[in-house]
Amino acid sequence: MPVAEFVNAAKLALSSDPTQAQARFRAHHDLTGRTEVTVKVGSGHRFTVDEPAALGGGDTAANPVEYALASLGSCQAISYRVWAAQLGVELDRVEVEIEGDIDLRGFFGVDDRIRPGFNAVRIRVRLIGPESAARYEELAAAVDAHCPVLDLFRNSVPVERELTPPH
Amino acid sequence: MPVAEFVNAAKLALSSDPTQAQARFRAHHDLTGRTEVTVKVGSGHRFTVDEPAALGGGDTAANPVEYALASLGSCQAISYRVWAAQLGVELDRVEVEIEGDIDLRGFFGVDDRIRPGFNAVRIRVRLIGPESAARYEELAAAVDAHCPVLDLFRNSVPVERELTPPH
Repeated sequence: MPVAEFVNAAKLALSSDPTQAQARFRAHHDLTGRTEVTVKVGSGHRFTVDEPAALGGGDTAANPVEYALASLGSCQAISYRVWAAQLGVELDRVEVEIEGDIDLRGFFGVDDRIRPGFNAVRIRVRLIGPESAARYEELAAAVDAHCPVLDLFRNSVPVERELTPPH
Repeated sequence: MPVAEFVNAAKLALSSDPTQAQARFRAHHDLTGRTEVTVKVGSGHRFTVDEPAALGGGDTAANPVEYALASLGSCQAISYRVWAAQLGVELDRVEVEIEGDIDLRGFFGVDDRIRPGFNAVRIRVRLIGPESAARYEELAAAVDAHCPVLDLFRNSVPVERELTPPH
């Protein structure tokens, strides 16, 4: 099914039955090495997370903050696909570069006034296709207004944390 | 090097020369399929992101919001390792479960009053080890105050987006 048809069918289904729109995503994590984590996501995919040697790990995989950037970059790329179809914008290629800055004194507790996470993130999007620059700017605005992971970066999310007592 | 020794050495280095604390992370993304994205992170690791069939993809890998949850869960797990060492808390095992809720009407633009990203996230941490419940609560509080990706979820991050004109 072409992407535009899929999007129209999805919009129709979600409008007529909003309970279908309530999606729940899950991930399970096991600290299996010094800093190595085995991840299983709800849909059946598995992968590894680790830290580089400079952060005390074995460098067997990307680290958590790199996965966070990849989550943002891939969400942007896929949102370009979906919103180009929705707006009827032709698009031959999408590349996204992300950079994020962290002051490591926050994480290690050297100075608790320094936030532990990213203090700045930059996204560079490169679109290739036959449309005008104005049309691609319009597409980019639609993507940024609807990209789930950009929303996560730009706005706060309510998070509850529960500790299961040790046995 | 034991984790506690690594952490002490890192804290000393970061305190004496704060320029060493400025870390920059990078990820590059190519939309290589219908919703398939090839990711290269700065440190040389590669992986794939895709959407499940229900979201129009080929389900070859976890999707962006699952990677976002995995980023949070793995960051929590590793922060338990690092902060247990820093606080001298013994810890035999760490498991983290994350659930996140999204109303898909936001992403598809069915209703622009609905945020496209997570509206709620729940973290369940299971610690196994010989310490008292109070000691593990103290550890969890230290982790939550210093976990970089929890900071990303709970607080807003300044994000700039630049569009390279098409050629």
